[in-house]
Amino acid sequence: MKTNAGRFFEDYRLGETIAHAVPRTVSGGERALYHALYPARHALSSSDEFARACGLPAAPVDELMAFHLVFGKTVPDISLNAVANLGYAEGRWLKPVFPGDTLRAESTVIGLKENSNGASGVVWVRTRGLNQQGEAVLSYVRWVMVRKRDTAAPAPAPTVPELAGSVAASDLVIPEGLSFTDYDLTLAGEPHRWGDYAVGEKIDHVDGVTVEESEHMLATRLWQNTAKVHFDATNRPDGRRLIYGGHVISLARTLSFNGLANAQMIVALNAGAHANPCFAGDTVRAWSEVLDKAETADPGVGALRLRLVAMKHGTEPFVTRSEDGKYLPGVLLDLDYWALVPR
Amino acid sequence: MKTNAGRFFEDYRLGETIAHAVPRTVSGGERALYHALYPARHALSSSDEFARACGLPAAPVDELMAFHLVFGKTVPDISLNAVANLGYAEGRWLKPVFPGDTLRAESTVIGLKENSNGASGVVWVRTRGLNQQGEAVLSYVRWVMVRKRDTAAPAPAPTVPELAGSVAASDLVIPEGLSFTDYDLTLAGEPHRWGDYAVGEKIDHVDGVTVEESEHMLATRLWQNTAKVHFDATNRPDGRRLIYGGHVISLARTLSFNGLANAQMIVALNAGAHANPCFAGDTVRAWSEVLDKAETADPGVGALRLRLVAMKHGTEPFVTRSEDGKYLPGVLLDLDYWALVPR
Amino acid sequence: MKTNAGRFFEDYRLGETIAHAVPRTVSGGERALYHALYPARHALSSSDEFARACGLPAAPVDELMAFHLVFGKTVPDISLNAVANLGYAEGRWLKPVFPGDTLRAESTVIGLKENSNGASGVVWVRTRGLNQQGEAVLSYVRWVMVRKRDTAAPAPAPTVPELAGSVAASDLVIPEGLSFTDYDLTLAGEPHRWGDYAVGEKIDHVDGVTVEESEHMLATRLWQNTAKVHFDATNRPDGRRLIYGGHVISLARTLSFNGLANAQMIVALNAGAHANPCFAGDTVRAWSEVLDKAETADPGVGALRLRLVAMKHGTEPFVTRSEDGKYLPGVLLDLDYWALVPR
Repeated sequence: MKTNAGRFFEDYRLGETIAHAVPRTVSGGERALYHALYPARHALSSSDEFARACGLPAAPVDELMAFHLVFGKTVPDISLNAVANLGYAEGRWLKPVFPGDTLRAESTVIGLKENSNGASGVVWVRTRGLNQQGEAVLSYVRWVMVRKRDTAAPAPAPTVPELAGSVAASDLVIPEGLSFTDYDLTLAGEPHRWGDYAVGEKIDHVDGVTVEESEHMLATRLWQNTAKVHFDATNRPDGRRLIYGGHVISLARTLSFNGLANAQMIVALNAGAHANPCFAGDTVRAWSEVLDKAETADPGVGALRLRLVAMKHGTEPFVTRSEDGKYLPGVLLDLDYWALVPR
Repeated sequence: MKTNAGRFFEDYRLGETIAHAVPRTVSGGERALYHALYPARHALSSSDEFARACGLPAAPVDELMAFHLVFGKTVPDISLNAVANLGYAEGRWLKPVFPGDTLRAESTVIGLKENSNGASGVVWVRTRGLNQQGEAVLSYVRWVMVRKRDTAAPAPAPTVPELAGSVAASDLVIPEGLSFTDYDLTLAGEPHRWGDYAVGEKIDHVDGVTVEESEHMLATRLWQNTAKVHFDATNRPDGRRLIYGGHVISLARTLSFNGLANAQMIVALNAGAHANPCFAGDTVRAWSEVLDKAETADPGVGALRLRLVAMKHGTEPFVTRSEDGKYLPGVLLDLDYWALVPR
Repeated sequence: MKTNAGRFFEDYRLGETIAHAVPRTVSGGERALYHALYPARHALSSSDEFARACGLPAAPVDELMAFHLVFGKTVPDISLNAVANLGYAEGRWLKPVFPGDTLRAESTVIGLKENSNGASGVVWVRTRGLNQQGEAVLSYVRWVMVRKRDTAAPAPAPTVPELAGSVAASDLVIPEGLSFTDYDLTLAGEPHRWGDYAVGEKIDHVDGVTVEESEHMLATRLWQNTAKVHFDATNRPDGRRLIYGGHVISLARTLSFNGLANAQMIVALNAGAHANPCFAGDTVRAWSEVLDKAETADPGVGALRLRLVAMKHGTEPFVTRSEDGKYLPGVLLDLDYWALVPR
């Protein structure tokens, strides 16, 4: 067999590190496409001049682009036979990615637990994105439910990693040189500084985007994500393609510009759930809640811990679960992240 | 309220200058997308070599890309609550934009007139696009009808600016260094020089493009235009998204290559009307009329004043209005501009 | 008439060389779009670092991008009035194309033969793509059936060129400096070297892509291909747009990554047939057959001659024709090419 059938649950070994294929050099082309695919307006990744005024050498690509590129590389090895993408934890952006950088990725298996049905199991991996100097640009834990090839295959000893509920503010990595001392609120688009946000505050981001099949496929292919469900309409009886969860993350994050224009850089991913699938034709909306605030040692730089919820049009904002504790059917995404904001 | 509800008619003050948010660095990525989104074939913005042979340092991005990027920045401040985009005047391109340039924009309020119904008013702005050196690359007047937040708000003294019917040929700004002395007609694609066009001549550009939802949304997002009507299918009872008028301008201009391949650079926008809305599924066609001709002081460079009309398939070319003076329902765009042509 | 009606059969002269219009500078933007439009994962054109490790100065753009850009330039002169695209032969890639290069194209008429019906004829052209140094980057023969403008026009003496059934292995041009001595199989994505493939071996590439209207139009416009049938839904009674055959070639080639990840560079196009038209909504799949193998003088570099067949979902792999010798209706493409593979 020359083709890759993907790994099954019994193929993973605790502690092994998998080097993922297909390194990728990014350019202004990927940045332009990010602006075409999402309503991306955060000034720091839109303008070299704005980024320089904030102490960076040029505009980095959107942090979620780095995430998608790294995530995409892991799909052939981690989630080709995944039944579900269960969660994220301990995600940290460690270095900005600039046009010209080349990214590759590797994942270490940090947990394995067979399901009681014997047909699948949960695999935890810690994935790192690396640039051409071998420096880590991103690190996160993801766990997925993966089918077994052979239900009779013996189960490994169950190992469930202990994961932080969120990244501690003291562990956030601020990009070298970043300074918001001369931050231009007018060019950024909103007057709200770190001090203007209160823990518990909720923001309805108001705008909506109706998703087309070609858009999510262009995006997901751009990240070299190979999961069949996103591209092959013959894969489901209803002929619909399942939209890559990361597409919804980027839609929600870019929609959140309206109210969080100054939340310029994502520095940590604390947790995330793809609550319900998203399909072409859905109109996606978003709201945020301020979960926590922290100061940093860097000039003018504060951090906000934000909950970002994406929902389909028709779903009320600020509610995510029904009385039985289950996600409401219109909720698509429930994400918890840290972003840097001028103080 | 953290989100931007946009300005209403009573929020504008005569003479004030609004600095628009979100500067943008352009790259080869935006240029490639322009070629993917429109049938763009004008050689000067397609080939660095062709541009150098015409005295420029490299291929500038399409003039309409500069226009869309600047226009997009103004939307959150000028037209988020606009009922209608009424017109353009006195538009001039002042410097070519090259990959690597960063654009920002500002608009000065030059006219205000409340409508007799007291529910809305007309706002005139002169918008300037600026590059990273603070040099103006583009300047134009636009006027829009904007809703009032409070119909009881007092009306400002009506001020209607005097606007030129068209940019005088002597006011056209020819890019520094531009020379058509060694112009290569074969590489440009057509043999027709400035002298081959006669005032009154009409050209049916023959080709048509059927528009898809995802295409106009990709384009409009690329220009960071935030008007909801272009992206949110829940915004109208019929579930259709209104196509950004500038998308039709670019479609018509690029379709006009077939007959006007040598009209290489747009240097002025005299007037423009979005006669009827365009929707996905429409097949757009275009025709042009030569309105005027002018020589310039630059080597080998002539100017043509052109009327560019976009229409839906099924509409006859060369007619735009019915007997009562109204635009025919199939007419989408009626534009008046100056372009540079080799003599 | 200012517009280009295209050439008709009687407009071609044996031996004439047509310089095609609209040179094009490529950038990272075109590369990013190639990754968004196709599931492109071959490491050599994805990563500058991988390409440098293989002896090249940077990642070249995909060989098929060079082909599409050159092909697109020929359309206004060769196939605007073509009834059918009949075949390819003697295609060779002569120099890699890198971001920053500017491509133009020219075609020499090498054969003419009027059809017995007197209404059309076959035109053979040898097309060359040239970079900004005037170096040929690509050369191929294509023949098309072209309508006559005037069925009474006299027929030229029939000349049918003698064309090689395939490019001889000894005529393959290996890019200067290419070395697979330090080739990284892990980063490339598959462990199979040249020696692991056997003549006669067939590979089902498993994956499928469902095609959308906007995707094939974005791609085809990006190559500045002007054939109306791809863009104008009013052109056919059924309102469907015919997908550019080259779009199917790129889909099939990129789908073939799964099983042929190490077939890094296409160096020759031996033959090709667009067996049936492809339309939006079709799910495209692909399979390959190893037709031949050859060593090369370059370090670690072998060549595989491959047959690449694209088919619609529901068509069995490995069969292309019915008993009467005709292509099965689900077969879209039957291509024969040489690619370079690490030994």
